[in-house]
Amino acid sequence: MEKQGFRKNLINIEPYVAGEQPKSDNIIKLNANENAYPPSPMVGMAIAEFDSSVLRKYPDFSAEPLKSELAAYYGLTPGRVFVGNGSDDVLAAAFRAFFNGDEPILYPDVTYSFYPVWCDILKIPYKTIPLKDDFTIDVADYKIKNGGIIFPNPNAPTSIALDKNKITELLDANRDVIVVIDETYIDFGGESCVDLLDKYDNLVLTRTFSKSRSLAGMRLGFAMGSEELISYMNAVKDSYNSYPVDAVAIAAGCAAVKDDKYFKDTISKLVSTRERLIKEFDALGFETAPSAANFIFTRHDKFSAKEIFAFLREKGIYVRYFNKPRIDNYLRITVGTDEETDKLISAVKELIN
Amino acid sequence: MEKQGFRKNLINIEPYVAGEQPKSDNIIKLNANENAYPPSPMVGMAIAEFDSSVLRKYPDFSAEPLKSELAAYYGLTPGRVFVGNGSDDVLAAAFRAFFNGDEPILYPDVTYSFYPVWCDILKIPYKTIPLKDDFTIDVADYKIKNGGIIFPNPNAPTSIALDKNKITELLDANRDVIVVIDETYIDFGGESCVDLLDKYDNLVLTRTFSKSRSLAGMRLGFAMGSEELISYMNAVKDSYNSYPVDAVAIAAGCAAVKDDKYFKDTISKLVSTRERLIKEFDALGFETAPSAANFIFTRHDKFSAKEIFAFLREKGIYVRYFNKPRIDNYLRITVGTDEETDKLISAVKELIN
Repeated sequence: MEKQGFRKNLINIEPYVAGEQPKSDNIIKLNANENAYPPSPMVGMAIAEFDSSVLRKYPDFSAEPLKSELAAYYGLTPGRVFVGNGSDDVLAAAFRAFFNGDEPILYPDVTYSFYPVWCDILKIPYKTIPLKDDFTIDVADYKIKNGGIIFPNPNAPTSIALDKNKITELLDANRDVIVVIDETYIDFGGESCVDLLDKYDNLVLTRTFSKSRSLAGMRLGFAMGSEELISYMNAVKDSYNSYPVDAVAIAAGCAAVKDDKYFKDTISKLVSTRERLIKEFDALGFETAPSAANFIFTRHDKFSAKEIFAFLREKGIYVRYFNKPRIDNYLRITVGTDEETDKLISAVKELIN
Repeated sequence: MEKQGFRKNLINIEPYVAGEQPKSDNIIKLNANENAYPPSPMVGMAIAEFDSSVLRKYPDFSAEPLKSELAAYYGLTPGRVFVGNGSDDVLAAAFRAFFNGDEPILYPDVTYSFYPVWCDILKIPYKTIPLKDDFTIDVADYKIKNGGIIFPNPNAPTSIALDKNKITELLDANRDVIVVIDETYIDFGGESCVDLLDKYDNLVLTRTFSKSRSLAGMRLGFAMGSEELISYMNAVKDSYNSYPVDAVAIAAGCAAVKDDKYFKDTISKLVSTRERLIKEFDALGFETAPSAANFIFTRHDKFSAKEIFAFLREKGIYVRYFNKPRIDNYLRITVGTDEETDKLISAVKELIN
């Protein structure tokens, strides 16, 4: 029935369902790919020492201090760095800025669930490219007419990274569209394409502070590319929101980038926990994709994903189960601390034995 | 000439030009309607004592603590409060959620410059309604067929508030569309329509922490309405950005709302400075609109706005000049501290005498 009165002007929309954020402190939360470790103590200091009186003014609209810090870290000029309010904000700016052709853009069938959201909102035509049976990307499938390409490296929720020589092959075959590589999880093991930015002026990389830099609570993301492409992302952002990144977030982000030792130590801890988890899961009858991320993508030969998910939930361990084609027998499990991982393994043993 | 290669897919866009953010500390900055006073000391404490370890997790996606704080303050249920990343973000959600009809939405010809931006992005048909010669809104002009109405109260850059009985008249004539009143500047002297929310289920009020609560650097805005209308704004927000308000901003916002004495003292100081400024300007040959905001809208009978703007700029005092029809002989000047106001008045005297 047609809506009446003022309700006829309401948007017709279905809400996005995010990973659960349980409030209890007793829950082991391995369902949102958050970092198991807190941010650098330097972030804590930057926030504690923040001069709140400056908050009466609008923040630096270009987030210049953070751009400079990131540019120095990655060996780029500040004009080649875009900063946004979380990587969803960064992706939104990229979709708006770069995907305006008539041909469909391409991305994998199994990937980050916000790509179709932005295509729908912005009415961007798209075509999903099925991953191979082993959930890898075959770059040969991306050598067709298209209006742009986006994929995460490593991909999510599969955790699998794409070799750089394969990425080069994809880029060489797609010089006349813009290719966005979503490097959300790259710091945990994949090989970044930062060094390809000079060769490919149609390449843009998106990043986040939410995973490897433990700042999910702060909402910070960034992108890197040519000065030309980044200027379009800035124009998009400026056109609808003059000041998206707040002054405290800028200070916290700078501190996080500065503390490189902490950053590398944290990643190294997570990677060794991940490898141990995969090994122990192997022994328990799991088949786990080769992970280059801070999570694993796994299935069991006797217990269904749904069954394991429900059992773990009972035990207060939250993991991610997707009721979606192709992946409905897999679990995505965030790599926690060693203690959390021990508890996860014990719980799984209890189910299996 | 048609763009070639990947450039053909770039967005065709013109960047928004925000008020200047001069970097020098010697500048008296009266051009962005920022609060002359810092946020409450309780905000400083909330930030200084913030436990940065929680930042590894995503923030409360519904910003619940802040919604509850605001709900209690305004006598509403938390479900009637929407929280966003600055009032531009809040306005964007409102435009998306509420302006989906075939008829044009209505707003004043002289008003906040982001309304047409959102109409363009979202392809919302609109019709601007000219203000009267004295820059007031005549509600009789809004008794025509429309797809929704939005206006700021007080209006910007005019600083003029609309009487509540006039607003009721407008609402009574527009029960079958959604009316959004942008109360960005309401705390400085206008009469809020919060108490009309129970009577008009098609009314939504938008607010910001950037002005009366001195948190422009933090990016916090909110909206109030019926549970039904607010649920649509939440659905819009969730559909494209699961976690827009960061954890530190939530804590700072709660502290700002809690310190009601500081809030009221600051406003009272600004209002008395504003009244003194208007009086002194009167004596110097200015004609100033009756202001209910933390800025004045003024013109001089002998010196052009452009001339005064350039002179003040030379003296290190930045005010806002709009090179736009109807208002190109007016200046918008933020009410500063008493000391800044003294310097402004001295500089103007120097020009005039």
